Amino acid sequence: MNIYEMLNKIGSEQPIVHHITNWVTISNCAQAVKSIGASPVMAHAMEEADEMTSISSALVLNIGTLTRELIESMLISAKTANEKKIPIVLDVCGAGASSLRNTSCLKLISERKIDIVKGNASEIASIAGYNVKTKVVDSSEVEHSLADVALNLSNKISSVVVITGKADYVAANGKVSIIENGDELMGKIVGTGCIAASMIGCFAAVNQSDLFTASTAALSLWGIAGEKAVLKSDGAGNFLFHIFDILSSLSEEDIIKNKKVTFL
Amino acid sequence: MNIYEMLNKIGSEQPIVHHITNWVTISNCAQAVKSIGASPVMAHAMEEADEMTSISSALVLNIGTLTRELIESMLISAKTANEKKIPIVLDVCGAGASSLRNTSCLKLISERKIDIVKGNASEIASIAGYNVKTKVVDSSEVEHSLADVALNLSNKISSVVVITGKADYVAANGKVSIIENGDELMGKIVGTGCIAASMIGCFAAVNQSDLFTASTAALSLWGIAGEKAVLKSDGAGNFLFHIFDILSSLSEEDIIKNKKVTFL
Amino acid sequence: MNIYEMLNKIGSEQPIVHHITNWVTISNCAQAVKSIGASPVMAHAMEEADEMTSISSALVLNIGTLTRELIESMLISAKTANEKKIPIVLDVCGAGASSLRNTSCLKLISERKIDIVKGNASEIASIAGYNVKTKVVDSSEVEHSLADVALNLSNKISSVVVITGKADYVAANGKVSIIENGDELMGKIVGTGCIAASMIGCFAAVNQSDLFTASTAALSLWGIAGEKAVLKSDGAGNFLFHIFDILSSLSEEDIIKNKKVTFL
Repeated sequence: MNIYEMLNKIGSEQPIVHHITNWVTISNCAQAVKSIGASPVMAHAMEEADEMTSISSALVLNIGTLTRELIESMLISAKTANEKKIPIVLDVCGAGASSLRNTSCLKLISERKIDIVKGNASEIASIAGYNVKTKVVDSSEVEHSLADVALNLSNKISSVVVITGKADYVAANGKVSIIENGDELMGKIVGTGCIAASMIGCFAAVNQSDLFTASTAALSLWGIAGEKAVLKSDGAGNFLFHIFDILSSLSEEDIIKNKKVTFL
Repeated sequence: MNIYEMLNKIGSEQPIVHHITNWVTISNCAQAVKSIGASPVMAHAMEEADEMTSISSALVLNIGTLTRELIESMLISAKTANEKKIPIVLDVCGAGASSLRNTSCLKLISERKIDIVKGNASEIASIAGYNVKTKVVDSSEVEHSLADVALNLSNKISSVVVITGKADYVAANGKVSIIENGDELMGKIVGTGCIAASMIGCFAAVNQSDLFTASTAALSLWGIAGEKAVLKSDGAGNFLFHIFDILSSLSEEDIIKNKKVTFL
Repeated sequence: MNIYEMLNKIGSEQPIVHHITNWVTISNCAQAVKSIGASPVMAHAMEEADEMTSISSALVLNIGTLTRELIESMLISAKTANEKKIPIVLDVCGAGASSLRNTSCLKLISERKIDIVKGNASEIASIAGYNVKTKVVDSSEVEHSLADVALNLSNKISSVVVITGKADYVAANGKVSIIENGDELMGKIVGTGCIAASMIGCFAAVNQSDLFTASTAALSLWGIAGEKAVLKSDGAGNFLFHIFDILSSLSEEDIIKNKKVTFL
């Protein structure tokens, strides 16, 4: 399936994408998911984690405002997802900034099968064990080639690994895609990374057998929408809402013409 | 009181509307309440539930991101509201999707006097005991007449029952109103239903003796604002913020001319 | 440093401003902080409170949706901030409305060194021990001169005290500044006060040795952005997002020409 076919399938199947996420971007992640036609469910109580995941087509975990209770819920939901072969996206938001975040990510990755691990350069480098000083949710300098960092971690944990930034990298099974869509103004919006993970969740929901392609497609779509929205925006304030408008109306031509994806 | 008189009373009395709600739409619910001149209070700690409800003119409960702690707070606030005759709106958001949601709603309805129960067709059908597969927060096919579903549940639990959707139904004491205001783009915004419950809370605050009329008026006003805002919107992205602008500036003529309410 | 120099320093140093705040305005506070070039971190788990505060240049505490867990996290973060001389802003949001809020504020103020205490007139009056009936997060009538209320509390607790409202007052060490920037439409946005506290946090981060000047500058900048944004707004709906756009593009001339600050 190409990007447009996946997007169409999202619109026609309206897959439920279950999130256990943070309180900062929860509203915008839900609206982004809805903007491309999927059904966002944000439910974090451990008592309903199993049931909510059971009826979903993808699970998005985000550690942005992590607590001990949320980790418990994530472990329960991820267990259900593994049993039912529902793809899991883990956004390692802020990894490197605290022991709680580091140990929680490693626990999730070691005790559950996480299908897609996503972060910015310093977050992924931190998960991969490189010595890097994370500037919390902003990306720091990383001295290794990002493609190599992604590939190595992907091999080590047998997952798709996504590094977002000026260019995005998706690595899986020895392959790497590089997505150069997007606009630098997206970096001025709180939650761009969280929403990218939600987009990946939607595409994974309808292309469960090829999560490498699904992740690449999601990031390209998200970037294309940003490129078009920036033309209507005076700054970061209204920019996100213009992106939502555009996400719900992208044509096949918009996507084909603007897609910037290469493979290593 | 007609819709405009209630709206005016909200603006002049600025009633406090206490919410115990979900983390996805909490911000937009507060802004919607403020847009029509009421004073939103979102406070969920069980330690202050009683005090916060005591100073309020309506209580809005929403189970969108329910936890055990929130249920405890809701039970405390609802007890205070019952003692002080403060009207309670319960948005049974996602009812049918998990045992936690179902048992919590039934507990609230059986152990407290819930004045207004609000949901979409599948949520209300689930509360009413019909065998329906809820697609979580989106509405599924329900085989019964919605007016009948609302009336039957209203009789059974002695509450106003509100079903929102393409048309909205309000049932109480054997009467049903049908509100056909609104625009289908409202269904593309995350939280339209939650905000509708908050609107009902505001109107209930200033018309406590006639919650049937208050609920009908709130839904008509919300729909009228949506109809006018859609003309200024390119999609769901900025639509909600245009609705907020319009909510704060509707004239009596706007309301009289656009109101679409019928009674069974 | 003048306002523009502080703003430039924020942009170049991108200080981390750690928030433990409420679920209603958390997203908009983060975006506001990012709009002026600082790095927002919203992390409330007590397990990472110490680490997150350690890497920050300011700490903003806001009791808007307080729980017992959040108070614990605030106490931990404030202890770390005190040890590392990181300035703390406490927004006493809703003080006066419940015992939980009152006792929590007094506990924070008595057990930690809170550098800047900020609220509206009735919240600050309540903290100062005046007999005032708080209308929760909206400001009530206060019979004392606001400058005196701020000065007295400032002397009593040896902190900068900020009262926001139609005019804003900043008191410290016997001095008072009065900021008359802003537009009344800002009062129609949920979270204006919370964001003002976040702005103060950003300015405190880059001017730690003069928090009186930092607080005054932050409030003036926030008000100037509001004055310019109101010209582009049809109501409160999109207003906040226009403010964000303007915050990220204010020139030195905009600030010099529009600043309305006087001193008692």
